[in-house]
Amino acid sequence: MLRAVLYAVFLLGALPSLATDSRGHISVVLLGATGDLAKKYLWEGLFHLYLDQVSSGHSFTFHGAALTAHEPGQKLMFEVLKKLACPTHVSSDRCAVVKDQFLKLSQYHQLKTSENYTALNREIETLLRQEGLKEAGRIFYFSVPPFAYAEIARHINSSCRPPQGAWLRVVLEKPFGHDHKSAQQLAMELMTFFREEEMYRVDHYLGKQAVAHILPFRDQNRQFLDPIWNRHHVERVEIVLKETLDAKGRTSFYEQYGVIRDVLQNHLTEVLMYLTMELPANISSSEQVLQRKLQTFKSLQRLGSSNVVLGQYQAYASQVREELEKAQDYAVTTPTFAGVLIQLDSLRWEGVPFLLTSGKALDERVGYVRVLFKNQAYCVQRETLREAGRSPCEAKQIIFYIGHGELDHPAVLVSRNLFKPIMPAGSWKEVVDLPQLRLFGHPLSDYYVYSPVTERETYSVLISSIFHGRKDSFITTENLLASWEFWTPLLESLTQHIPRLYPGGLENQHLLDFEMVGRELAFTLEEPVELLHADGQMPGDYRTIQAKFRQSPLVSAWPEELIAQLASDMEVAAASAVARAGEFHVALSGGSSPVILFQRLAMHHYGFPWRHTHLWLVDERCVPLADPESNFGSLHKHLLHHVRVPYLNIHPMPVHLNRRLCVEEDRGPELYAKEIAALVTNASLDFVLLGLGYDGHTASLFPQSSSGLEGAELVVFTESPVKPHQRMSLSLPLINKARQVAVLVMGKGKHEITTQISRVGQEPRKWPISGVNPSSGQLVWYMDYEALLG
Amino acid sequence: MLRAVLYAVFLLGALPSLATDSRGHISVVLLGATGDLAKKYLWEGLFHLYLDQVSSGHSFTFHGAALTAHEPGQKLMFEVLKKLACPTHVSSDRCAVVKDQFLKLSQYHQLKTSENYTALNREIETLLRQEGLKEAGRIFYFSVPPFAYAEIARHINSSCRPPQGAWLRVVLEKPFGHDHKSAQQLAMELMTFFREEEMYRVDHYLGKQAVAHILPFRDQNRQFLDPIWNRHHVERVEIVLKETLDAKGRTSFYEQYGVIRDVLQNHLTEVLMYLTMELPANISSSEQVLQRKLQTFKSLQRLGSSNVVLGQYQAYASQVREELEKAQDYAVTTPTFAGVLIQLDSLRWEGVPFLLTSGKALDERVGYVRVLFKNQAYCVQRETLREAGRSPCEAKQIIFYIGHGELDHPAVLVSRNLFKPIMPAGSWKEVVDLPQLRLFGHPLSDYYVYSPVTERETYSVLISSIFHGRKDSFITTENLLASWEFWTPLLESLTQHIPRLYPGGLENQHLLDFEMVGRELAFTLEEPVELLHADGQMPGDYRTIQAKFRQSPLVSAWPEELIAQLASDMEVAAASAVARAGEFHVALSGGSSPVILFQRLAMHHYGFPWRHTHLWLVDERCVPLADPESNFGSLHKHLLHHVRVPYLNIHPMPVHLNRRLCVEEDRGPELYAKEIAALVTNASLDFVLLGLGYDGHTASLFPQSSSGLEGAELVVFTESPVKPHQRMSLSLPLINKARQVAVLVMGKGKHEITTQISRVGQEPRKWPISGVNPSSGQLVWYMDYEALLG
Repeated sequence: MLRAVLYAVFLLGALPSLATDSRGHISVVLLGATGDLAKKYLWEGLFHLYLDQVSSGHSFTFHGAALTAHEPGQKLMFEVLKKLACPTHVSSDRCAVVKDQFLKLSQYHQLKTSENYTALNREIETLLRQEGLKEAGRIFYFSVPPFAYAEIARHINSSCRPPQGAWLRVVLEKPFGHDHKSAQQLAMELMTFFREEEMYRVDHYLGKQAVAHILPFRDQNRQFLDPIWNRHHVERVEIVLKETLDAKGRTSFYEQYGVIRDVLQNHLTEVLMYLTMELPANISSSEQVLQRKLQTFKSLQRLGSSNVVLGQYQAYASQVREELEKAQDYAVTTPTFAGVLIQLDSLRWEGVPFLLTSGKALDERVGYVRVLFKNQAYCVQRETLREAGRSPCEAKQIIFYIGHGELDHPAVLVSRNLFKPIMPAGSWKEVVDLPQLRLFGHPLSDYYVYSPVTERETYSVLISSIFHGRKDSFITTENLLASWEFWTPLLESLTQHIPRLYPGGLENQHLLDFEMVGRELAFTLEEPVELLHADGQMPGDYRTIQAKFRQSPLVSAWPEELIAQLASDMEVAAASAVARAGEFHVALSGGSSPVILFQRLAMHHYGFPWRHTHLWLVDERCVPLADPESNFGSLHKHLLHHVRVPYLNIHPMPVHLNRRLCVEEDRGPELYAKEIAALVTNASLDFVLLGLGYDGHTASLFPQSSSGLEGAELVVFTESPVKPHQRMSLSLPLINKARQVAVLVMGKGKHEITTQISRVGQEPRKWPISGVNPSSGQLVWYMDYEALLG
Repeated sequence: MLRAVLYAVFLLGALPSLATDSRGHISVVLLGATGDLAKKYLWEGLFHLYLDQVSSGHSFTFHGAALTAHEPGQKLMFEVLKKLACPTHVSSDRCAVVKDQFLKLSQYHQLKTSENYTALNREIETLLRQEGLKEAGRIFYFSVPPFAYAEIARHINSSCRPPQGAWLRVVLEKPFGHDHKSAQQLAMELMTFFREEEMYRVDHYLGKQAVAHILPFRDQNRQFLDPIWNRHHVERVEIVLKETLDAKGRTSFYEQYGVIRDVLQNHLTEVLMYLTMELPANISSSEQVLQRKLQTFKSLQRLGSSNVVLGQYQAYASQVREELEKAQDYAVTTPTFAGVLIQLDSLRWEGVPFLLTSGKALDERVGYVRVLFKNQAYCVQRETLREAGRSPCEAKQIIFYIGHGELDHPAVLVSRNLFKPIMPAGSWKEVVDLPQLRLFGHPLSDYYVYSPVTERETYSVLISSIFHGRKDSFITTENLLASWEFWTPLLESLTQHIPRLYPGGLENQHLLDFEMVGRELAFTLEEPVELLHADGQMPGDYRTIQAKFRQSPLVSAWPEELIAQLASDMEVAAASAVARAGEFHVALSGGSSPVILFQRLAMHHYGFPWRHTHLWLVDERCVPLADPESNFGSLHKHLLHHVRVPYLNIHPMPVHLNRRLCVEEDRGPELYAKEIAALVTNASLDFVLLGLGYDGHTASLFPQSSSGLEGAELVVFTESPVKPHQRMSLSLPLINKARQVAVLVMGKGKHEITTQISRVGQEPRKWPISGVNPSSGQLVWYMDYEALLG
């Protein structure tokens, strides 16, 4: 049947004669041809592709496919096709002619069984042979749920691959997994059937004209941006996608994903990459762009729950209970609003806050990227005399306006006091007739404003890119996994996080405004009482418990409060030591619990007297200090790198002397002991932070240790039952000379040893921790509820 | 005569009977009683003092004094006194009565000779004895040029001191010297006659009501300010005093001082202190305030010419030439406008820019302090829905409005989204009926606005403080010298600085706007050609000379350009090494020239790949690393403290092993050589920075050295002819393995050795520098013009 159609189309003269052309034929197979996405966007995109390419010398056939049988499927599909419209710049005559051709070149197929796929393949082959057409390639557009991917992929791979010399492009729609593991699994499956270059993962945001222009803008305006596109000039970047709609009717999907997976992990992260990646020499090279993106992913600072604010519009929970038929007490904690503070560890961006925000049921629908530059100027002339929009004291901004909002079209805005950007004349035009509008604190007239010459539908842009084999607007497997790798730990840490409720729409008022507090985020306003969950006590409602453990003070709390208390106690100790003696000597342990403490100290305790603090190690593994296993390495990475401790106040243990590790005759322990004796009055450290091992060890003093539990030695070599075996450690006698000793114990896994230790006497040979007993100082236990209560 | 008057005043009943009062008598002696300041402010201040104190139980006499003979002096003085007016809140009846009393209590004295002073003293004593008055104290107000201070002081000290039990207060007006040395000299002189507590140095700015309220405001609002009065929340502080007047008629004074000495060194610096000092427990204690101020002076970062922008209004030069009768080619470089960027090295203020600005012939007369807080918030609600002045996304500011300007009265303004301040109800009132005015980007209605209940004349405030013995609004000797110590190096470095010309008034437009570039200041706009000096070539116009020296490339320039070039060359070398090998190994020398280089690297080269840089030392003195003499110490202070080099990439020379210095058997050189061999490929350093000594030494390789000039050793002990004698040094063979060697030579003092070295061959035993000859790397000489040309 298609044969006759193709022939008919040629006769219409709309195409150059095939005899003189060798560009070849493209078969487009749209799987899920009668689904929502296809109805709303994809057929239109394919039609626009045909409109653009009808005179290009290629020939096309369009194969709608679904599980539905041929008759009803065909009917449904053509109902959609009949409604197709042309972009406004196409004349209605031409539109009618080309649409007629498009309908003739389109056909419905039931694709269910292996035989169906074989039949489709045969049909394409026959057509090509009979028409003497060279095959250019095949596009398979997966507009189907991800669980169907594998089977379809297998069928295509085994029955529908084009012959040698023609290309295969399969187009995939999100979600691409739910977390790093599931994304990886899905990617592995697909990779058994398709090569990387054959797969086009759609992130439709990359088809938005303002988003697609970020890299070209950076590239074409290098002369202006090179000096200022960095942490010295950029104050902050906001990447925002606000929606007014809620999730009603879609909660079965939304409950599984939530706003971070739905919008931030993909769309906003891709935008973040475009903004922050180092520009490759050639931005048209997908390969170069990908490499730069992957480098940038590596520089993203790991997120914790404190970098996020979450919200949920008030009606969401009842919508979920209704649509998913859940009981009234079914807990709904999926966030529908998120603000995330992302920072990068790179010379270019260190310290610049990137604020990603998205939510449903907000006051307006809008998407934008706002790059706000620092105001470094002082204007001597008084305000009323300044030339608006020209003064160096006015805000300097670059905005990629993605769409909707008050402007209601894609745009690029550059503050007039910044520079007049270079824009590609063919595709972007300066907007001269500006509406009376204020955007980002300024009248539009303060900006150079550009909009696309032709506004293009996102899917038309993307389908055109697929046709041209331009992969840079699509998400490669590596890119996808890098993004999930970044987001997954945060998502896992948020499972117990209760989002703030918001009424939705205009009523939200300032309720969702948030602010940076150091490197963290917090809502600006207190949560109003009437919106508070009535679900009972939240963990945060518990108070820090003060009690006794082994006759010494015990501080117990949930992990976050516990660490906060310990950090604050340390700062008090430091301040009082500095006031008393001009310096503070603290010995720190390795391990994972101290890492959280280090991060807290680095991020919250700006007043800590680091300049007068001497840092000692409680123990060290016999590995080079640069080894990832080294306690010092962890201390450096999580604390030293972020604060300003004078070089000579840092005292790593000398496990690596004469370029060898912990050799007796190098006398490392003796050296360290001498250093302590020389710098610390009476070798009495101001603060010693210890941990507790499952076997009752502390520092690197293990049960039955032949050294360090008693005697005159201040620092000793010891043996650990686990690798690396060789250790250096402060001795119990030295620890017990300290003014303050803190033992930090966290996690359920420690409950057993904690219970045991609570009952025993002072038996350091059996349980070294029981020998911690400062002779004139104070011992305080810091235990989280899990360690204490199990 | 005064006796009768005093008696008459008592009869008037305005004073309580002296018989029941023991508060005593105060004699006020105003020296320079017919001068400008006295006419304009001082008599009025004294009259207001009398108005305030007339019912306090004290009795007063006022003694105007000058060099003029009695008759004409008396006449002149009473002409001034007759015009005295009361503040508006005093009824005209009361005013007339008290003024009449005041005139009767006032008397003119010629004070010229020693006898005059003795006579005055006798007169006061007689009066007191006859009236049976107890003497409370004497105030001597010096409203005379500073050159007259010493003689008057001597006379007062020898002839006019009050008896035991009564106080002496001498009040001094600026200028208090011209630089640190002259201020010290003047202070020493005065201290031979008066005790510190007897001297009241007036800075009339401290009598301005808004300035005087800074400390009380900080004290009374501790609950709000404690969390935010620091570098984490304050974005910048502007301290501004703008004048519309020019210096016409006063150029003979102004030419000696200029804007920095006239306004910044005193008024604006004092304001800076009030803003930045740590609050003492008791802000009423002058002693505590002084101590905190002095601490703060210590934390001010030293200023260089790059922290300043200077201007001169166009008419100034001709005014000077005319008034001082100078020739047309007389060069006038005194600045009449200055913007200065001050930073503090304190935990509280590190990194916060304090912009001090003052100038004559500007567009308006106004004084203010503006504390702008960082905007850390993101507001989800769109702009048009935000509550003006309440949104956390609007600017948060505290303004001490000193006077004049659009507001035209002293005020304290606090953004409404910040907090409602606590203000002393008796002296400050909230302004409710706000004029339609925008200040600092916002309508007045966005602020809580407070103004003084009673506007008081500055000198009335100050004279009242003197009477009450409140010293906190006066400049102590220590305070004065600390301020001069801070400003003098800058003033010295500016002697050759040519200020930008500005037309004056409204025409200045954006010409004086300036901005921060890293830690420096620069005018935002280029200097317009028509205003440029035609005086010929400035040093900056010279180009960096590229030539050869000893067959190697020579870069020669003025010091600043030379250092800039070297720093930039180093960064290029670093970037290329990191690109090639992932790391950059650089060995640095000690000494004063490298310090400037370090500072430049720290402050300008934000893109320097410090994270991948290994820092080695070229040589080291055998002193503990913490010793001020240590090369490492200097490197730490000027570079390491300001950049982020990983701990393990820092390689101080092991001159201090086993807690002893440079002992052969500790094998320091061998250890360092091993470390280099282990970390640096082929022991070929990427960049070695050397200096050149007067005797031709380089690194710590001295003429006739027995080690290091040849042989296989990479690192050696050497002996210096100057202390400290013992040194450790890289050897010539190691230096010559480097990829790049830079020799930095600066200053006239090096010209002789430079000339010599330019002529000799390769004779390292005689001139070690001549042995620097990289085998496959490149040697570049960096010499300033003085070293090269003498």
